[in-house]
Amino acid sequence: MYITQSLHQMLQQDPHRPLTVYGDRIRTVAESASRVSRLAGGLRALGVASGDRVAILSLNSDRYHEYLLAVPWADAVITPVNTRWSVVEIATALRESRARVLLVDDTFNSIAEELQEQCPELTTVVHCGDEACPPGMADYEQLIADSEPVEDARRGGDALFGLFYTGGTSGSPKGVMISHNNIMISALGSLATCGFISPWGRLLHVAPMFHLADIGVWSMAMLASSAHVILPAFVPRDTLKAIAEHQVTDALLVPTMMQMIVDLPEASSYDLSSVTNVLYGTSPISEKLLQRIRGTFSGAAFMSAYGMTELSPIATILTDADHETPELRRSAGRSAAHSEVRIVDADDNELPRGSVGEVVVRGDHMMLGYWQREEETAQALRGGWMHTGDGGYMDENGYVFIVDRIKDMIVSGGENVYSIEVENALAHHPAVSACAVIGIPDEQWGEKVHAVVVLHPDHQPGAAELQDFCRKTIAGYKVPRSFAFVDSLPLSGAGKILKRELRKQYWPQEGRQVN
Amino acid sequence: MYITQSLHQMLQQDPHRPLTVYGDRIRTVAESASRVSRLAGGLRALGVASGDRVAILSLNSDRYHEYLLAVPWADAVITPVNTRWSVVEIATALRESRARVLLVDDTFNSIAEELQEQCPELTTVVHCGDEACPPGMADYEQLIADSEPVEDARRGGDALFGLFYTGGTSGSPKGVMISHNNIMISALGSLATCGFISPWGRLLHVAPMFHLADIGVWSMAMLASSAHVILPAFVPRDTLKAIAEHQVTDALLVPTMMQMIVDLPEASSYDLSSVTNVLYGTSPISEKLLQRIRGTFSGAAFMSAYGMTELSPIATILTDADHETPELRRSAGRSAAHSEVRIVDADDNELPRGSVGEVVVRGDHMMLGYWQREEETAQALRGGWMHTGDGGYMDENGYVFIVDRIKDMIVSGGENVYSIEVENALAHHPAVSACAVIGIPDEQWGEKVHAVVVLHPDHQPGAAELQDFCRKTIAGYKVPRSFAFVDSLPLSGAGKILKRELRKQYWPQEGRQVN
Repeated sequence: MYITQSLHQMLQQDPHRPLTVYGDRIRTVAESASRVSRLAGGLRALGVASGDRVAILSLNSDRYHEYLLAVPWADAVITPVNTRWSVVEIATALRESRARVLLVDDTFNSIAEELQEQCPELTTVVHCGDEACPPGMADYEQLIADSEPVEDARRGGDALFGLFYTGGTSGSPKGVMISHNNIMISALGSLATCGFISPWGRLLHVAPMFHLADIGVWSMAMLASSAHVILPAFVPRDTLKAIAEHQVTDALLVPTMMQMIVDLPEASSYDLSSVTNVLYGTSPISEKLLQRIRGTFSGAAFMSAYGMTELSPIATILTDADHETPELRRSAGRSAAHSEVRIVDADDNELPRGSVGEVVVRGDHMMLGYWQREEETAQALRGGWMHTGDGGYMDENGYVFIVDRIKDMIVSGGENVYSIEVENALAHHPAVSACAVIGIPDEQWGEKVHAVVVLHPDHQPGAAELQDFCRKTIAGYKVPRSFAFVDSLPLSGAGKILKRELRKQYWPQEGRQVN
Repeated sequence: MYITQSLHQMLQQDPHRPLTVYGDRIRTVAESASRVSRLAGGLRALGVASGDRVAILSLNSDRYHEYLLAVPWADAVITPVNTRWSVVEIATALRESRARVLLVDDTFNSIAEELQEQCPELTTVVHCGDEACPPGMADYEQLIADSEPVEDARRGGDALFGLFYTGGTSGSPKGVMISHNNIMISALGSLATCGFISPWGRLLHVAPMFHLADIGVWSMAMLASSAHVILPAFVPRDTLKAIAEHQVTDALLVPTMMQMIVDLPEASSYDLSSVTNVLYGTSPISEKLLQRIRGTFSGAAFMSAYGMTELSPIATILTDADHETPELRRSAGRSAAHSEVRIVDADDNELPRGSVGEVVVRGDHMMLGYWQREEETAQALRGGWMHTGDGGYMDENGYVFIVDRIKDMIVSGGENVYSIEVENALAHHPAVSACAVIGIPDEQWGEKVHAVVVLHPDHQPGAAELQDFCRKTIAGYKVPRSFAFVDSLPLSGAGKILKRELRKQYWPQEGRQVN
């Protein structure tokens, strides 16, 4: 299969229906396809050859959608860049992928010059914003207007569809190579497992389109002949307004977005009854928030998925029916139709149900590998299974429960301690503003539980008070033995705490192996 | 992907739930998987090597289901044989496929000896019936009891899953090579397009399991974690009883079966409310029958699919919503998510909407080819499209309407005449018991419309009366110019009229090209 297949299908079946909605701009399937074929022609005219990488650094827009189709149409490889990264990180990804062309919108055109200086192979920057095209850049609309349409390359199967740079928390960014079949199998398998997207509906894009979570749902919506209602970024009020105005049927939301929606005083004044599916990624979501957001979208099925970029991206799904069982709401769900999931020990032996080990996943949605990193690819895909790095267990019915990142698990006196559990306990103390729990060397216990804590300025409890507090909710061996009080925690570009930075000072270079 | 993947998934998620129901015999997922792995071991012990063909000649049963899984588990190739064929036809398929092992049930064990005489490479016949094992055969249950389980070969992707002999109406049977990916893509794509099968439901098997129509739906049900309620063959009363007793949720029925169900006086006394999906293949179904069967299964969605063995098998789907529009009920539906469909002329140029040409289909569900028939494979798949041999047109919204087999279309004086339309007109005459319409050579018109008719014994109208009758419903140029009255029409094993036999006497050998 190939990613543009659905566009041809919609063109055959309903060319005059709206395909993208972005502010006041609505484009039909036929318009969109015509622009895509000419944008592909334009990319070719800019010297983009088969297999070349074409990068984008932009907030969400209908042009992002066109980019996702035009690049494969031209037989090139999409390379979406994380908009939250620093210039240095972005330049590293562009240099490593050897992107020839970069698309930037109004928000990011100011750093384009700096990126070009740092990336000698980047020959052209295309301005895909709505403001005037800055000097030295090619104009997106002009490129479409001036270019003849080209035939769709219709490359598919194992050909490279995209390079997705993942990031930050475990070393320098790696380019994940995803083929056409990878993403199509994840999309078809997820649709087959639980519907996931309403056929001929309208999908909301407020999650960033550079991320494979959104592109994955986008690819499902393409297969389902949906329209795409696209907002530049998540703003609670704008989101509800767009849902009501465009009768959105499907929405991918992360828990932070859900929280902001339910906290909006006038939320109930919008007509949200068109929403039939709310999709969210597996990340801790409180019972209370889930209950409130289900009240807000009272007509919707709620489904969550667990996966990662390397899995194109979906491995397991928690269906709406699963949500009825309280204990399952903490679960990542069960393997989707296309996906095999196991829990294994450090030697890749499958573990009995209930035992915590690493979650590994196999199937045709497994990435081709990491771009130009053979060793890391071999390590990640050893034995034919993608090693997720997530620690978890599986219950008797195949439901997967994620407990921690494997490398963040602490083994103290033979007991497993999950840093997340300790962090959750600590975070409930009113004085704790942020915290991270890591294992540090200990002669007696091998590792001991160590907490790095940012306190609220007006409340300064000591270690003993925090230990007592923790002891009320978690077992004694999980309570931090030592504390460091700091002003701030080191964060990745995506806002994740960089535990490896915290560990550095405690572990000698030849010490604890952290990937 | 690979066909046994779903069995492993069910084993992980719900091993103790029933997987097959056959009469009083109910087997759980775990039992079924254990038997499959030992049957695979047994096949290996019988000398079945990787890629060997293992044939089956049997009515439907739970053992048929085990066969469909055990053969790929042993890395061999399923070769289901049409139970309606003559011994000569069956022997031809077995010889051509060089099957080493054949499974037969009680209904067919009487011809096993004859088949073995005609097929020197057939070393073992396994009796998979419920009666005593005839001498000279291996006993299915004994084979399972005596064999150690083997590991699943887990071959998938482009590896050969099955050889499906199609046949009869257009020459000698051809073995269609279907890969694991072929069937999985058709299944995933169809599920993704319109649900098609209820997740965790119960699928009824009354259509013959040797046919890829049933195996295709079976593979979807495997992906959907369904149970299988299996009847040896279609008997109206037994079917309704089984639906009510086992709370069947999904049923594949052909129009003939539907007719027999609605004609059953006590149909309304069965509780059929569990049925949520009724699936049927695209074949002429009257408005009246559709209305009656929708009344019988009043809680069900009705979906029909068009395809062929060479397409694993689904190309287009008419959804339940499509059924609401009267004009669409004659349609074969629109391309499913995995499938590309076009209408082309004899030179493979795409035709405008509304023009009749050949229906061609492309996608990863397209067969690998015909077994040991390179030339016919190249011809069927020329240009990368499967040429279905069906004549049809597409409307403005991508709905496909099948009008006739391309080779049965008659071109008379530059006008296309569809034999089916003329046959439908003729068949309404009370004296006509059966008829077939073909084109025969004509100096003036190129071809002329010729009808071969079987009359009811007590009513013998002449050609003129039949012509007058036709003229009331079809245009003058479509009315048969000549008639032949015969006692019976030549039929294929599957009950289709062999028009090539009828044409033979009219066309010199070097004449009309009929595939």
